[in-house]
Amino acid sequence: MNDHIVKSFDQDLAELDRLVAEMGGLAENLLADAFSALERRDPGLAERAIASDRTIDLLERQIQERAIVMIARRQPLANDLRHVMTVLKIASDLERIGDLAKNIAKRAMAVSGDNRPRQLINGLGHMCELAHQQLKDVLDALGTRDIAKALAVWHGDQRLDDLYNSVFRELLTYMMEDPRNIGLCTHLLFGAKNIERIGDHTTNIAENVHYLVTGTMLTDDRPKGEEAAPVLFGAAN
Amino acid sequence: MNDHIVKSFDQDLAELDRLVAEMGGLAENLLADAFSALERRDPGLAERAIASDRTIDLLERQIQERAIVMIARRQPLANDLRHVMTVLKIASDLERIGDLAKNIAKRAMAVSGDNRPRQLINGLGHMCELAHQQLKDVLDALGTRDIAKALAVWHGDQRLDDLYNSVFRELLTYMMEDPRNIGLCTHLLFGAKNIERIGDHTTNIAENVHYLVTGTMLTDDRPKGEEAAPVLFGAAN
Repeated sequence: MNDHIVKSFDQDLAELDRLVAEMGGLAENLLADAFSALERRDPGLAERAIASDRTIDLLERQIQERAIVMIARRQPLANDLRHVMTVLKIASDLERIGDLAKNIAKRAMAVSGDNRPRQLINGLGHMCELAHQQLKDVLDALGTRDIAKALAVWHGDQRLDDLYNSVFRELLTYMMEDPRNIGLCTHLLFGAKNIERIGDHTTNIAENVHYLVTGTMLTDDRPKGEEAAPVLFGAAN
Repeated sequence: MNDHIVKSFDQDLAELDRLVAEMGGLAENLLADAFSALERRDPGLAERAIASDRTIDLLERQIQERAIVMIARRQPLANDLRHVMTVLKIASDLERIGDLAKNIAKRAMAVSGDNRPRQLINGLGHMCELAHQQLKDVLDALGTRDIAKALAVWHGDQRLDDLYNSVFRELLTYMMEDPRNIGLCTHLLFGAKNIERIGDHTTNIAENVHYLVTGTMLTDDRPKGEEAAPVLFGAAN
């Protein structure tokens, strides 16, 4: 392999990194817009947010295609190959985050005509803010290869899980108090679950940033497994 | 590349296929056990089902490691590379199916002490049966490279989505009728959502079987996007 090819491979990697950063920025905006749409009951904003997920999906496909071409043409050795595979995993998590944020936007459309008290939505608002901050931080950590920041995000997911459990319980009480809240609260329950899962994918990205920089995996004991059942009625988690 | 190496690559591919089939069988059993545990309120069975997901995760990691080694050592050309990438995608969908089925088992544990009427669980039972059959069919299609069967699964996901929408509405009515149903029904709502998503991953596998056999992608317009919000109160989907 001569210098020219080595340099080109690095350029290809840099281009992959740029595309992933672009995906990340779009996912961050989508999440922010989805919650604004829910909060303001703004179906127009929800619709624009939903449409933007398409671009995220296309970017992921573009990253996958480029990665396959890179692997096939350049035949990178194990280390570079693992770098490419890690970028693919990060892109896949961002694509899932986009999907989940899009679902929140869809729920915003579904409830835009609902006039139940605004108070019901506050808990979800806190979750969104925290999830958005975590996503922003992990993208910064990725851009600057900052392990400390990635680790902080990884640990921070526990707060989001705790908040999810509180919001979950709170929503159940609204449902029990007044059956007219059940429709809206069901949407909010699913929205809260989506945000909790966005947190899990953000945690995955933090693990992969750590792997990119250090070459070693974080332990398997993540702050919390994806899609865990909520603690409810004292039952096992 | 000499014959010996070419033959070994095919052997490697066959071994990957075998591992994926093993994952598929485990995911199928996990789904069946998770629902039995929910139906019989059997926390012991739920616990065994949850534990079996660990094996599925380990198999996926094993498949990923082997695939990376295959790509790095054999440096396959574009077609073989796409085959390996497709197997990786199928393994990733099976891993997600395992996770989602595990969540149903976790909910089975959470509600095992609940004594609400059994009738509430019937809709979810139908969904489980259908999702299980779809998963079984797509694994058969994968094993026998049967495009017609893969396409039937792909189209069949619509029935599961329709059933999800019915069950969703039915569960809401139970919640509105009697607040004591809210706790159990919330678990069942999430369970139904998990099964709907299992259907989406099964659909992904059907697309990848089609791709493996024909080399062409099915259209992007899948029967239904993953994680779509349910139709509710006449709102947009």
